[in-house]
Amino acid sequence: MKHQSLNETWSRGEGAINGWCSIPSTITMEIMSQNKFDSITIDLQHGLIDYQTALNMLQVMSSTNITPIARVPWNEPGIIMKLLDAGCLGIVCPMINNKEDATKFVRATKYVPEGFRSTGPTRALMVHGGNYHDEANKNIISLAMVETEEALDNIDEIASTKSLTGIYIGPSDLSVSMGLNPGLDRTETKIVQAIDKIKMACKKHDIKVGIHCLSSSYLKEKISDGFDLVSFASDFRFFSEIVSKKIQEVRD
Amino acid sequence: MKHQSLNETWSRGEGAINGWCSIPSTITMEIMSQNKFDSITIDLQHGLIDYQTALNMLQVMSSTNITPIARVPWNEPGIIMKLLDAGCLGIVCPMINNKEDATKFVRATKYVPEGFRSTGPTRALMVHGGNYHDEANKNIISLAMVETEEALDNIDEIASTKSLTGIYIGPSDLSVSMGLNPGLDRTETKIVQAIDKIKMACKKHDIKVGIHCLSSSYLKEKISDGFDLVSFASDFRFFSEIVSKKIQEVRD
Amino acid sequence: MKHQSLNETWSRGEGAINGWCSIPSTITMEIMSQNKFDSITIDLQHGLIDYQTALNMLQVMSSTNITPIARVPWNEPGIIMKLLDAGCLGIVCPMINNKEDATKFVRATKYVPEGFRSTGPTRALMVHGGNYHDEANKNIISLAMVETEEALDNIDEIASTKSLTGIYIGPSDLSVSMGLNPGLDRTETKIVQAIDKIKMACKKHDIKVGIHCLSSSYLKEKISDGFDLVSFASDFRFFSEIVSKKIQEVRD
Amino acid sequence: MKHQSLNETWSRGEGAINGWCSIPSTITMEIMSQNKFDSITIDLQHGLIDYQTALNMLQVMSSTNITPIARVPWNEPGIIMKLLDAGCLGIVCPMINNKEDATKFVRATKYVPEGFRSTGPTRALMVHGGNYHDEANKNIISLAMVETEEALDNIDEIASTKSLTGIYIGPSDLSVSMGLNPGLDRTETKIVQAIDKIKMACKKHDIKVGIHCLSSSYLKEKISDGFDLVSFASDFRFFSEIVSKKIQEVRD
Amino acid sequence: MKHQSLNETWSRGEGAINGWCSIPSTITMEIMSQNKFDSITIDLQHGLIDYQTALNMLQVMSSTNITPIARVPWNEPGIIMKLLDAGCLGIVCPMINNKEDATKFVRATKYVPEGFRSTGPTRALMVHGGNYHDEANKNIISLAMVETEEALDNIDEIASTKSLTGIYIGPSDLSVSMGLNPGLDRTETKIVQAIDKIKMACKKHDIKVGIHCLSSSYLKEKISDGFDLVSFASDFRFFSEIVSKKIQEVRD
Amino acid sequence: MKHQSLNETWSRGEGAINGWCSIPSTITMEIMSQNKFDSITIDLQHGLIDYQTALNMLQVMSSTNITPIARVPWNEPGIIMKLLDAGCLGIVCPMINNKEDATKFVRATKYVPEGFRSTGPTRALMVHGGNYHDEANKNIISLAMVETEEALDNIDEIASTKSLTGIYIGPSDLSVSMGLNPGLDRTETKIVQAIDKIKMACKKHDIKVGIHCLSSSYLKEKISDGFDLVSFASDFRFFSEIVSKKIQEVRD
Repeated sequence: MKHQSLNETWSRGEGAINGWCSIPSTITMEIMSQNKFDSITIDLQHGLIDYQTALNMLQVMSSTNITPIARVPWNEPGIIMKLLDAGCLGIVCPMINNKEDATKFVRATKYVPEGFRSTGPTRALMVHGGNYHDEANKNIISLAMVETEEALDNIDEIASTKSLTGIYIGPSDLSVSMGLNPGLDRTETKIVQAIDKIKMACKKHDIKVGIHCLSSSYLKEKISDGFDLVSFASDFRFFSEIVSKKIQEVRD
Repeated sequence: MKHQSLNETWSRGEGAINGWCSIPSTITMEIMSQNKFDSITIDLQHGLIDYQTALNMLQVMSSTNITPIARVPWNEPGIIMKLLDAGCLGIVCPMINNKEDATKFVRATKYVPEGFRSTGPTRALMVHGGNYHDEANKNIISLAMVETEEALDNIDEIASTKSLTGIYIGPSDLSVSMGLNPGLDRTETKIVQAIDKIKMACKKHDIKVGIHCLSSSYLKEKISDGFDLVSFASDFRFFSEIVSKKIQEVRD
Repeated sequence: MKHQSLNETWSRGEGAINGWCSIPSTITMEIMSQNKFDSITIDLQHGLIDYQTALNMLQVMSSTNITPIARVPWNEPGIIMKLLDAGCLGIVCPMINNKEDATKFVRATKYVPEGFRSTGPTRALMVHGGNYHDEANKNIISLAMVETEEALDNIDEIASTKSLTGIYIGPSDLSVSMGLNPGLDRTETKIVQAIDKIKMACKKHDIKVGIHCLSSSYLKEKISDGFDLVSFASDFRFFSEIVSKKIQEVRD
Repeated sequence: MKHQSLNETWSRGEGAINGWCSIPSTITMEIMSQNKFDSITIDLQHGLIDYQTALNMLQVMSSTNITPIARVPWNEPGIIMKLLDAGCLGIVCPMINNKEDATKFVRATKYVPEGFRSTGPTRALMVHGGNYHDEANKNIISLAMVETEEALDNIDEIASTKSLTGIYIGPSDLSVSMGLNPGLDRTETKIVQAIDKIKMACKKHDIKVGIHCLSSSYLKEKISDGFDLVSFASDFRFFSEIVSKKIQEVRD
Repeated sequence: MKHQSLNETWSRGEGAINGWCSIPSTITMEIMSQNKFDSITIDLQHGLIDYQTALNMLQVMSSTNITPIARVPWNEPGIIMKLLDAGCLGIVCPMINNKEDATKFVRATKYVPEGFRSTGPTRALMVHGGNYHDEANKNIISLAMVETEEALDNIDEIASTKSLTGIYIGPSDLSVSMGLNPGLDRTETKIVQAIDKIKMACKKHDIKVGIHCLSSSYLKEKISDGFDLVSFASDFRFFSEIVSKKIQEVRD
Repeated sequence: MKHQSLNETWSRGEGAINGWCSIPSTITMEIMSQNKFDSITIDLQHGLIDYQTALNMLQVMSSTNITPIARVPWNEPGIIMKLLDAGCLGIVCPMINNKEDATKFVRATKYVPEGFRSTGPTRALMVHGGNYHDEANKNIISLAMVETEEALDNIDEIASTKSLTGIYIGPSDLSVSMGLNPGLDRTETKIVQAIDKIKMACKKHDIKVGIHCLSSSYLKEKISDGFDLVSFASDFRFFSEIVSKKIQEVRD
């Protein structure tokens, strides 16, 4: 398989910066991919993107060595495998609440004997090289989202899931789950402690830990804190922010 | 959240007229939405519409105050949440056969603590206003389809499902389930009695009751009968009917 | 080339009924094409349809023997030839005002020596048979729209254009051109006389004459009057009419 | 329901040749469907095709009498029923490992009383005729994929599933499941024996047996061996093969 | 016709702020249209947008009262009329170099007697009201781009074109035409003087004058200078700018 | 501007192999672009491809260094410039019959002072580098199609057109123009002589000469003959050929 930015960054022991696409457009994706992201995640859960559009966006990413990842709408093998066959090298799966969820997820991303992924990597084989089958199990990244109190309670078990690449923290759902408002870059003590607990569990089990961030400052802080992957808001938020800012600059 | 036609109609104690879209087209949707429907349902089950097209159709509906609803293909959290994030304010879920089905469905439409909907209402937040999270649980409409004999047997339990907005009767599947031919606007005694039984259970549990209708006369009758929501055939049926009628007028 | 409904109808000396598609959808087209039209015209002028969508609609028509026609946005060789290569067997060209316009149009639809159409009938060759090149010049239908006072003044010259299949009357533009309101099925004397004048010119030069109609009664009258092709409103008008009618039936 | 090529071939006791589409394009589908396939399967599992594109491809197939089939991404009722409503006359379901899987799958393809398919065959009714409901249960083809060791162990039970049309062998996954490399047209003894075992079980239970093939020679051999349905590589493989071959011819 | 933001702003004697869309996406358009632009121009010239996508973007704009405008690729009647029928209320036409160009352009936007626009305002009639035909000639905005030395020489003649709404300055092409580099917000004396000359000609002939701007400060300056319409960079530039800025914030 | 395969091949004095895409699909394009073509031409004339699809196909090509070219439907500045802005580095223009045609074409591809191309290279600037404007006039390839007897008569004048990169021979139209059947790889003396005459004129004026080929043997012969660019049938022909061949192999 070809060289990928995310693996390189991780092999240097650095935290990776992950772009986030919610807009169903090959053009906004192409603009994103002109920038120095280590990976970009196409969000098929909260993003406004479905498989056929995601496929086109993946094709655009192939002109870079940014690692293509997708977040699936739910822990369902059909869409997980379909996105891998389309060329994704990583899957983020929402709402993993226990080890059973995590195992089901990870096994959907791996060929026999580590999982039950069906073989037939149509586009993946074409763009990632002839040794795709042999290297896929080792290279495909699986990130289980921990974003509920239940998952927090089960964090040690989840983090010990065989072959799981890492845990990806969804701070907004985690906050809602704890009775707080949704939102990113949390400073409430109980959220901070929860995030820390998750990170510790990942470190203990020697797996990656990632988190969704909004501001540049929070994102940099999380890299300093030792997070392996930090996602940066989203194309949707970036665009909303700048249009709003620009119009404010001229409307007073 | 902005004012919505369906809620207004219901707050006046009237039966609401629900348009039904099976054609994957923003243009037929735009024509539909020029008319006085209280709500329009985009049918992702039997309709010829998938998520990406539904998203575009939802965008077109935003130029009106008609309440946007979607029917999902199946009781699966991924697509339910994805359509809510896209801006739907109601979900119709097919083939709810017992309380367990109903609970799983309703909980997918509600944030914690009433359910397990994941937060990240990308487009919904943009078009429905900044207080979306706070008002979503109260405002999102969940309609469980009762359309089998099994569901009929469990009607009281289904109708008592916590937070369920109402029950939506699928007369065609209900008839097939009872050994009859498919079709709408049924007059057979056992279907009429089944529909009545469902309506009574809804009234008893103080939830809404809706039904799919074909003809104008049957639809009006159902409004008189106290139904809270009556769906009117579909764009597909309307268009098929008029093209056929027009060509007959000139071909003799 | 395969048997086509329009040619058959004409070979029996009858007036043909032409469907009209303004909605960019393969589904509305498929519903249309289940009905007994002799031809269906995809409108790329006032219709909401561009080439790529028209191509898909043409593919749907291939399951019938209804003759596929397109109206081009303007008298421009690029789009005329592109639609013929896509499989159209007829072209309606708007705003033909004089013989020069008509000649330019007709020649764009014909291979050398009758015209300057470029060869390369990619899809047309596949779906219309191996002898496409030999039969295209004879079979491709060219309908020049006469819809201005200037064209009316030049009607005899236009009607005498070499290889032109016929003239297609646009009553709405013709009315506007004469200082009246737009609209179809005109009864004003001067419009009636203008239409009659055009028909006479066509009969004199032994070419076909067609007209755009709205109501069933007007359309049937025009067939009785000897028109060779009568277009029937449009999918857009049909659908708008029935949705409006249905909602009125239940809203009083 | 209209005459279908696959049923005809089977009624003559012959093995049917099944085309395979992985490319999301109505044009490559149209080229495929100009050729003498008995059926063509649109692959929504490993193929690069989602529902909305599949719908357009099904529309293109309607100009032929080739039987339209789809392979679903997973054994999930929502997409199975949606593809049937779109006009598919057969469903291939991957990863059927035991009788429970097989029963769930078959029942999703059948109306009551043989299954729980929801009625509302929007496009299917339009293109397959007014008696669709009455004939669907008898005519809809269900092919369960046997492609794991677990399935092999359960082959007799799977083959005895009520109303199942047949079993479709996935040799590549079967090989991976047995610890071998992926790939088609297998000659290893244990795969050959496994395939034979599956075929025997099908013959015993008087159901159809199909297999995915790559080369012409292997495919012909399988027809001679008594297979009822042989799939022929895919549009994706065909196109990759010829472009590669052509460029090699001129690059030396 | 319904109330439009651009006309209101102009009726108050104020300069209008025009958004600019080059990205072919209904989602970026929807984000744009949540902001206080007086008008938004869909750019079919240098933008990455063609008619069918523009149509969907126009549908999204209908949920606001922002005036929808399109820039056409070239001074060609087919696309001008097609975009007006789709619901645009203004057209920007590039590369108007003399009065003949300007007249041809303006007349394509007007019905008889002021022009030769063909009647058939399919979507425009639906969304802009029943009196569309009567009010279109008065309301449709035509903006001729002046962006070459030749046009500068002919500015007085161009500005005197009958029924022309205004002139829209393209500073980048104007600069290139004068032998300078491309770019917006020019400060070179000869460009500044050229812009001033164009503005004066517009004031003299009592027509609107607009200009394309990049920075907030330049845009505000132009409003102060009495420009009637100032375009604000583009969605493409905004998005490129913020992604680049964000990644820089975190990459050092 | 980034390194491009076509320029490299030409700088080595070799004949370049040009792929040809008529199928509107990013997937078939991606398969094509995995092969060693020097350039690939997206055919918007006889191909089944319009701008919006071509844009997506161009995005896919950006993962390679194959030079992206487009053939336009007609000699019209709007589409020529739009495709250059989308990232094409070459334009093939059909039906150039005299020097006036050729000059109009070439000037549409060049910025002032060599032409009248409008500046605003939205995607081209992003993907081809910051010095795009400065290098575009030197690098953009313009290929005028000579494919009629009239053009043959004017060959010396056409070949002397200022800034024209080369002439591209359309053997099929040329044959039709001379009263023969359409088709490639011609052996008739008068066609052979015509092709030779065109090649000589190109050599005399020191411009490139290209030709459309069908078979591998003819293509290789033309490279040996000193042609600078040889196009290889098309994706459509390749795919049709192999599907037909495969089905024949198994149907006897």
